[in-house]
Amino acid sequence: MAQELATPLYQQIAERMESMIEAGSLRAGDRIPSVRQLSVQHHVSVPTVMQAYTLLENRSLIEARPKSGFYVRPRFANALRAPEAAKYKSTVTCLSGFASCLSMADDMIDPSLVPFGAAAPGAELLPLDKLSRLTASIVRRSPSAAMKYDPAPGSFALRKQLSRRSLDWGCSLSPDDFVVTIGASEALHLALLATTKPGDTVIVESPAYYGTLNLMAQLKLRVVAIPACSADGIDIEAVGKALGRHRVSAILVVPSFSNPVGGLMPEANRLALLQLAEMHHVPVIEDDIYGDLPHDGPRPRCMKAMDSNDNVILCGSFSKTLAPGYRVGYIAAGKYMPRIMELKHAFNLGGSSLSALAIAEFLKTGGYERHLRKLRHTYRQQVCKMRETVAEVFPDSTKVSNPQGGFVLWVELEEGTDVLPIFRQARAAGISFAPGPLFSPDGRFTNCLRLSCGHPWSEKMEAALGTLGKIVHAAV
Amino acid sequence: MAQELATPLYQQIAERMESMIEAGSLRAGDRIPSVRQLSVQHHVSVPTVMQAYTLLENRSLIEARPKSGFYVRPRFANALRAPEAAKYKSTVTCLSGFASCLSMADDMIDPSLVPFGAAAPGAELLPLDKLSRLTASIVRRSPSAAMKYDPAPGSFALRKQLSRRSLDWGCSLSPDDFVVTIGASEALHLALLATTKPGDTVIVESPAYYGTLNLMAQLKLRVVAIPACSADGIDIEAVGKALGRHRVSAILVVPSFSNPVGGLMPEANRLALLQLAEMHHVPVIEDDIYGDLPHDGPRPRCMKAMDSNDNVILCGSFSKTLAPGYRVGYIAAGKYMPRIMELKHAFNLGGSSLSALAIAEFLKTGGYERHLRKLRHTYRQQVCKMRETVAEVFPDSTKVSNPQGGFVLWVELEEGTDVLPIFRQARAAGISFAPGPLFSPDGRFTNCLRLSCGHPWSEKMEAALGTLGKIVHAAV
Repeated sequence: MAQELATPLYQQIAERMESMIEAGSLRAGDRIPSVRQLSVQHHVSVPTVMQAYTLLENRSLIEARPKSGFYVRPRFANALRAPEAAKYKSTVTCLSGFASCLSMADDMIDPSLVPFGAAAPGAELLPLDKLSRLTASIVRRSPSAAMKYDPAPGSFALRKQLSRRSLDWGCSLSPDDFVVTIGASEALHLALLATTKPGDTVIVESPAYYGTLNLMAQLKLRVVAIPACSADGIDIEAVGKALGRHRVSAILVVPSFSNPVGGLMPEANRLALLQLAEMHHVPVIEDDIYGDLPHDGPRPRCMKAMDSNDNVILCGSFSKTLAPGYRVGYIAAGKYMPRIMELKHAFNLGGSSLSALAIAEFLKTGGYERHLRKLRHTYRQQVCKMRETVAEVFPDSTKVSNPQGGFVLWVELEEGTDVLPIFRQARAAGISFAPGPLFSPDGRFTNCLRLSCGHPWSEKMEAALGTLGKIVHAAV
Repeated sequence: MAQELATPLYQQIAERMESMIEAGSLRAGDRIPSVRQLSVQHHVSVPTVMQAYTLLENRSLIEARPKSGFYVRPRFANALRAPEAAKYKSTVTCLSGFASCLSMADDMIDPSLVPFGAAAPGAELLPLDKLSRLTASIVRRSPSAAMKYDPAPGSFALRKQLSRRSLDWGCSLSPDDFVVTIGASEALHLALLATTKPGDTVIVESPAYYGTLNLMAQLKLRVVAIPACSADGIDIEAVGKALGRHRVSAILVVPSFSNPVGGLMPEANRLALLQLAEMHHVPVIEDDIYGDLPHDGPRPRCMKAMDSNDNVILCGSFSKTLAPGYRVGYIAAGKYMPRIMELKHAFNLGGSSLSALAIAEFLKTGGYERHLRKLRHTYRQQVCKMRETVAEVFPDSTKVSNPQGGFVLWVELEEGTDVLPIFRQARAAGISFAPGPLFSPDGRFTNCLRLSCGHPWSEKMEAALGTLGKIVHAAV
C-alpha cells in the first residue's frame, strides 16, 4: 500500500523539526514540546512521537533532561574548544598597581549598556514579589526587631536557617558557627584580615574575580596566581609546588563554578588541596558564592564539609540567588571566629537587621529550593544560548568555557588579540563586558573576556552579541 | 475684710504646688499644667495662675521652656558638680591591649538587664510605624530597586536628601560629596583607613567612645588621648601642645555632644582646632553622630561647614535618631573621596539598598524635623530625670555631666572608688551600665561610669537607679 512506501510518520515529524532547527526557528537551548503535547497537537500517537524524538536524539539534534523535557542541543557550540589553563612557574606578585585597571569595571553597572558585564542576576530572575511581601510583612509585624541594632554574629533567625542549609552543603554547622556579613565581599574581607597581614602572600586562582584581587590589593597582600581551568578549577599540582616554593598565609579558592572560568573542582582535588593546605599549615578560604547554582545534578559538597582540622573558612551569600541589594552573606570561620567577631564589631557592628530577617524568612517559608531549581535551569539555558551565539558569531579560533554551574562565560580570543580596543568599541556600541586583564594580577588574559549570562536572553542581547562578534572579527 | 487678710489665691496655688514638689508627687522634669489648663481646672483666672507660676519661677522651682510649657526644675541635680577634665601631659598610647576590656560591653545589649548600658535609643522613641510603612511601600512599589546592588557611593535618593540636610549643618554639600555607609562605624573605619596606616598616631578625646577606640586598636593605630570636659569638649590648648610634640596622622573629634562626656565645642574652639590641624597638615575626622540632638536651641554647625581647606572628613548616621538596625550612615570625605570609594567597593560594595531608600523617603516625606523636635525634647527629659535621680540616690561626692544634647551621662565617683566591683554587683542585680575604663585608652576612669538615658523613664528604671545608688554607697 502507498502508506507503507511513504516516509513513516515518526520520520516525517523528525524531519520537520530538523528543518526548523536548521532554519533557526528552534534554537539551541529551546525546549521543544513534550511527547504528550506534540501527540495531542498533531493528532499522532505517543509512541510515534517517541520514535521521532529518539531519532532526533540519535542525530544529536535534541537532548532529554531529567524531569525537564527535551531541548534543542547546541550545534555551533559543540565545535567550541574551552580555554586551557596556562602552564607557568608561579611567582609572587604585588597587587599595588591593580586598582588602576578597576575603572574598566565602572561600565559594568551602567544600566544603559547591554549587560554582559557585571555578574549580577537580572531582576526578572529574582523572587521579587515573594521577598517583597515577606519583607513588608516583617517590617509591619516586628518593626522594633527590624529597627534594632543586630550586632555580630547577627540575626539568630538567619543563622538558624543557614545551619539547616549547611546540610545541603555536606556540613552540619550550628547557628553559632556563622557570622552574618554584608554579602560575600565582607566575608572575604574578614577572612583575609583574620589570616593575613599586609605584605603576606595568598594563593589565588588565575584568572580570579577582580573584586577579590582588588580587596587583596587594598589589604596590601601579594598573590601567587595558580592557573585554573574551566573544567576542574585550580591546578592542584601547581598549588603543591607553590606551597613548597613560597611562604603562603592563605589559599583562596572558588571550588564550585569559579568566576570567571566556571571550574568545578572534583572531590578528589578538593581533598588533595585540603591535605596540601594542612601539610603546610595554611588556612583555606572557600568562596562558595556560586555553590547553589549547579546547572545539573546535586549541589557540590563544600570543602568545609571535608575539613576535619577546622582549617577552612567558608564564605557565601544570597547575592546571586535572592537579592544582591539586601547585602546578606555569611562566614563560617571555625577557629577564626573570635577574631572575625572582633573585626566585624569594630568595623560596622552588624548589617541591616531587616535584610537578615527577610532572607531568613524566605529560607524558612519562601520555597528557596523550588526557586533554586528554576534559577539553575534558567541560568543553564542562558549560558547555553550565549555559548551557542558566541560560537555562531565569533571567529572560529575563539575558545569558550563550558561551565557546569553559575552564569558567566570565559572567552579566549585568538592569541595576540588585544581585548582593550574591542572593549572600547563595544562600549561605544552600547555593550558592556568584563575585559580579561581585570581578572589577572600579573598582566595576563589580554586576549580574553568574561560574558555574564545573568540576564534573560532577548533579541536585543542576541543582536548585541552579533555586533560584538563583528567587532571581534575585525580585531583578530 | 477677711479675704484681704487671708493668703492671696495665687500664693495658695503656688504653695500647693510647692508642697507637691517637696513630696515628690511632681518630679524634676515633669511638665506642669499650662496656665490655661490650671485656670480651667481650678476655676481661677488666668492672671492669677500666671502670678502663681511667676512666684514658683522666682523660687527656682519651675522653669518655662519656649513653645513647650512649664517644667519642674531639678532640685537635687542643681547641687551636682560636673566632672572636670584631667590635666596631664599627653603621651602616645598603644591600644594593643584594649580589646581585652571589651567583653564588658557584651552586657550592654543583654535585653534582660535594665538598659543604662548601650547608647541606643529605646524603640518607643523611634518612628517605627511611619518608617515601617515607608519601607513596606518601597519594597512593594520598587522591589527591583530595593533588590539590586547599590555600589558605592550608594543611593542617589539618599545622597540628595543628605545634600538638603547639610544646609542644616551649615554646609552646602552636593549629593556627590557623600558616600553611604553601614552606620557611622563604617564611616569612621573608612576615614581612618584613608588617613592613616598601622602604627600611626591619632588624636582622640579622653574619655572616648569605646567603639572608636576598639576600631583604632584593630587598625593597629596608636592614640594621643586629649582630655575633654562635659562643658566644651576637647582641650584645645592640649591639642596644640600634642601636635607640637607628636607626629600625628589625624584628629578624631566628636564636637557636638560627644560620647561619653557630652561636651559641646564652642564655635571658637572648632575654628581654633581647624587652624591647628591645618597648620600641622593633619586631617580632622568629625564624628557628628549626635549633632542632630541638641536639647535646646539650634543644631550646632558642623566643623565641616568652617572647613575652607577641604581638611575635614564628616561622618554621621541615623542610628541615634531613626533606626539603628537599618545601618545607614554617611561620610563626606572631601579630597579623600576617591580613596574612600575604592575601599568601600573592595570591602562590601555597598550597604542594603532598601535601608538607604527607606531612610531617604523618611527624610523626604516623613517629617524628620518634627520627629527630631520631639526626640530632642524626650532625650532632654530623660537626661534631666536621670541626673535628678542620680543626685538623689548617689553619694554627695558624685560628679555628673550636664550635657546640652545627646542622651548619655558621664558619672565620676569619689576618687579611689573602683567601678568594676560595682559593675559586677549591678549586673548581678539586673542592671547594665558602661564602666569608665571602657572609655580610656590608658587605664583611666576607673572611678567613672556612663549611664545611657536612651530609654523612656519608668518606675522600673527609677528603682534600678536606687539599687545602683545603694551599691555605689556601699562601695565608696
